Amino acid sequence: MNTHQLVLVTLVVEEVLEERVTQELMEMGASGFTVCDSRGRGSRGLRTGNIPGQGVRVEALVSPEVADVVFRHAESAWFPHYAVVAWRSAVEVVRGDKYVESRERE
Amino acid sequence: MNTHQLVLVTLVVEEVLEERVTQELMEMGASGFTVCDSRGRGSRGLRTGNIPGQGVRVEALVSPEVADVVFRHAESAWFPHYAVVAWRSAVEVVRGDKYVESRERE
Amino acid sequence: MNTHQLVLVTLVVEEVLEERVTQELMEMGASGFTVCDSRGRGSRGLRTGNIPGQGVRVEALVSPEVADVVFRHAESAWFPHYAVVAWRSAVEVVRGDKYVESRERE
Repeated sequence: MNTHQLVLVTLVVEEVLEERVTQELMEMGASGFTVCDSRGRGSRGLRTGNIPGQGVRVEALVSPEVADVVFRHAESAWFPHYAVVAWRSAVEVVRGDKYVESRERE
Repeated sequence: MNTHQLVLVTLVVEEVLEERVTQELMEMGASGFTVCDSRGRGSRGLRTGNIPGQGVRVEALVSPEVADVVFRHAESAWFPHYAVVAWRSAVEVVRGDKYVESRERE
Repeated sequence: MNTHQLVLVTLVVEEVLEERVTQELMEMGASGFTVCDSRGRGSRGLRTGNIPGQGVRVEALVSPEVADVVFRHAESAWFPHYAVVAWRSAVEVVRGDKYVESRERE
């Protein structure tokens, strides 16, 4: 079975940020992403306060190196200005080689 | 990079339970949550039987201690009465310190 | 606390495949599944090219043995013909024994 160890990066952001965040994910080396509509609450969640806010939940399968780039970018570019939640975990992917950027495989 | 090892708790519940479950999550120490609409099937899934049911998928980033509280509460308070699915996994969170309750940091 | 180590299998597929994929998951030994609507992009994502496609995100909690069956099936039956993304990760499940097929426990 052809599997790869990769990193699943999950971002929960305000819905107005969906286009920006997904575009920047691709620019940073993700080869794709999955978006689900969401709602929620949190200290750094979709909104502060008591009224749950609308957001999107974005996932991308990336190499550990790309995950580091995304996390550093989240910390420097998104967190100071927006309500963004970001986490990552190790996953095993079928045909995971498809998710590693061609420039990394050269 | 400022990251923390935390626990991602995921709950899949009937949609009528969304308000109760998310409120109790906050009371147990979660600092936020993300909800997505879902549908499904299962022995303990959204509905028993062959007709897929409507539900919600609730996620919260919490400390291991809070995750234990949530799991014990799920087992004693939710499972005997409702179709609830609950799982957890280790994740690495950007600015994870935001998700630890102030009372735990004191 | 009654917990089990299980495998969370996640599949992102074109929405026309939802019924087939969830039915085959059950036939392979899953005792349930959760589906969320999604959209996305990717080399093997929901669509190739620049127009984000509609899809579904399917999750199932299964034993490691069933996860292997699902991954092999994904590789042989789904990947050659469809845009399917498949990954798995280890999770801890409350009342996890409910998710192990009766035929496996015999």
